[in-house]
Amino acid sequence: MSFRIVTISREFGSGGRSIGKMAAEKLGIPYYDNELVTKIAEKSGFAQSFIKEHGEETSATSSLLFNLSNWGTYYNYTVSDQLYFAQRRVIEELANKEPCVIVGRCADYILRDRTDCLNVFIHANMEFKRKRIVEIYGGQQETTLDKRILEKDKRRKAYYKHYTNQSWGQMENYHLCLDSGVIGLEKCADVIARLMKPSR
Amino acid sequence: MSFRIVTISREFGSGGRSIGKMAAEKLGIPYYDNELVTKIAEKSGFAQSFIKEHGEETSATSSLLFNLSNWGTYYNYTVSDQLYFAQRRVIEELANKEPCVIVGRCADYILRDRTDCLNVFIHANMEFKRKRIVEIYGGQQETTLDKRILEKDKRRKAYYKHYTNQSWGQMENYHLCLDSGVIGLEKCADVIARLMKPSR
Repeated sequence: MSFRIVTISREFGSGGRSIGKMAAEKLGIPYYDNELVTKIAEKSGFAQSFIKEHGEETSATSSLLFNLSNWGTYYNYTVSDQLYFAQRRVIEELANKEPCVIVGRCADYILRDRTDCLNVFIHANMEFKRKRIVEIYGGQQETTLDKRILEKDKRRKAYYKHYTNQSWGQMENYHLCLDSGVIGLEKCADVIARLMKPSR
Repeated sequence: MSFRIVTISREFGSGGRSIGKMAAEKLGIPYYDNELVTKIAEKSGFAQSFIKEHGEETSATSSLLFNLSNWGTYYNYTVSDQLYFAQRRVIEELANKEPCVIVGRCADYILRDRTDCLNVFIHANMEFKRKRIVEIYGGQQETTLDKRILEKDKRRKAYYKHYTNQSWGQMENYHLCLDSGVIGLEKCADVIARLMKPSR
């Protein structure tokens, strides 16, 4: 099996974005995360802040939008749906264009019909995630931090479920799942990069 | 993180045993699967056939034994428990002795207090597992085959739950999960072997 695209799903604080970035650097291919937000904004007209807030997790507003969509007619799409369709279009175009690493935004599901995608999930234990978030975003109380981590993943899970009808973080939906806390970010990136290379 | 031991849990038909064997060969370290059965038989006096049948999955008999154990006193252990204790002792001794690859038998859980174990889970889609089982064990009807695969994994899951109180096949219990159907057996073994080596 030869892969061209890497999709990375990740628990909050697990270092999935850094791993994706490192893997892309090792492979000399583009990495799309915030860059994706810019592209989606260009194509769709949605504001970058709106895409960041509603593009891969539910929020108070998007939960309301989800409910409204169930309540509405089949012919109208909610703003949340329209954002999803715009993201899907951008992700499909990027994957068609050239090899790349795409983080989050249901890319694994969106590209499910391709046979050249390596779908990765990055997870880690709470201690590792806590430490990493404090390093990146600064000190917070432990209870607040745990609540924040669990809440963030819960929202990503709900978003993924809504648009894919699959379970986020369930092993069978991914080709490679890595515990970044135990294996280390650098080695995780190395595993991904080596699996992408046709000959070793 | 530097690893000395690899534990491999695997879905029936996913090729986990072959991957473990290949990884051990690449690393030049012992591989324990059937070899484990022989050692457990030597240490415990249990017959090899009994160990093979009851050592990592429930069966009609062991389900009965589990029930009896719940019903019995705290001081008496069932035959199934005694086999588990014998396995645990052998696995702990092997891990203390030298680097090795151990397949199945709750080894990931038994060695959970060590920090030098790489816990791996191998899974694959039904089509791949079906094909592989037919190759190894010969032709069978598709419905019989699916039933056999699901039944076997169900029994492994129940055994694991009984002795570890953890969920078999749930990502957070493993450091590395690989879809052998998509990645390929050889590459899976390569990933494991490289993660075991301290310098790359």
